Amino acid sequence: MSRINVREKLLDAALETIQRYGFNGCGVQDITQAAGVPKGSFYNHFESKEALGAAVIGRYWEQRACSALDILNDAKLRPVERLRRYIAAIAEKMAARQYASGCLVGNLSAELSDQSTLIAERLSGVLDGWTRAMEACVREGQAAGELRCDLDPALTARFLVNSLQGAILRARVDKSGTALADLDAIVCATLLS
Amino acid sequence: MSRINVREKLLDAALETIQRYGFNGCGVQDITQAAGVPKGSFYNHFESKEALGAAVIGRYWEQRACSALDILNDAKLRPVERLRRYIAAIAEKMAARQYASGCLVGNLSAELSDQSTLIAERLSGVLDGWTRAMEACVREGQAAGELRCDLDPALTARFLVNSLQGAILRARVDKSGTALADLDAIVCATLLS
Repeated sequence: MSRINVREKLLDAALETIQRYGFNGCGVQDITQAAGVPKGSFYNHFESKEALGAAVIGRYWEQRACSALDILNDAKLRPVERLRRYIAAIAEKMAARQYASGCLVGNLSAELSDQSTLIAERLSGVLDGWTRAMEACVREGQAAGELRCDLDPALTARFLVNSLQGAILRARVDKSGTALADLDAIVCATLLS
Repeated sequence: MSRINVREKLLDAALETIQRYGFNGCGVQDITQAAGVPKGSFYNHFESKEALGAAVIGRYWEQRACSALDILNDAKLRPVERLRRYIAAIAEKMAARQYASGCLVGNLSAELSDQSTLIAERLSGVLDGWTRAMEACVREGQAAGELRCDLDPALTARFLVNSLQGAILRARVDKSGTALADLDAIVCATLLS
């Protein structure tokens, strides 16, 4: 197996394993086992479990979160439609996996924000990117006269991203889509112009 | 040391240790050590670490969360003032501890919702109690003509509790009070009548 292949396998396995059991709920051995590579090979690719965690955030962002953000950028849809379809897409994805796992960014935020500066910085960067995509959609919605213009678009975008994380968290606890439906209802009732 | 004292010491120590390191980030030995009791005494009081986790949620709710909820019930203040002071009190508490730890309910929701049915049920119960206190405040605000009457009070309360959890999570990642200030601004701009 080539060096690149081992690293890729480790990242894929770590993403699955950490999302399922949490960062502290699994060990390096669980990850190498899931990847089907010798335990000893781990430190040829990652300096530490923390470094792997930081790399996994990047992988999650590229593979999962970014593709979902395409909905927010979809020029074929009206901005409000994009926003609502984005919330609905998260709700559908969560329902399909019985509300397990949630969002890796939110989960690691809760678990590691105080434990690892490296991981907190990586999470902050990803959340900023997510917020920028949301802000672009909010600005377009305001320009199109669909969203209230008296709200600061950057503040509104931060609020939406943070409230989505809160709704995803509650959906996991309750094993129900209510929290995401609530957020959609509030957006419709309060943010539309 | 009496049996009750040991149990109390274990609960207090577990609350501090789990809030600091996460549930899977600490072991039974870390907790007995922090409590200053012999490791062997743990299983005289708790069947498992999971059972301790469930009991800690109850303790957190009684000792910390419930006292903060007094603000939402404070009949001396107008309902909107209560809601805003409640958000401000959370922001102040977080700033005082440099945005570390966050809310134990949110943290365990992220870490254990899929791992333990016992803990997920306990979290769901606490979040329901929190939501009911919020709903009572929203209803009073609507009756007083301070909050928009076209929004369902139960839905609005769930949205507020979930969005607060999202804001607390983001405040921890960013080590900043911006997320809570954003939520307050959105409440003022969109929910007041």
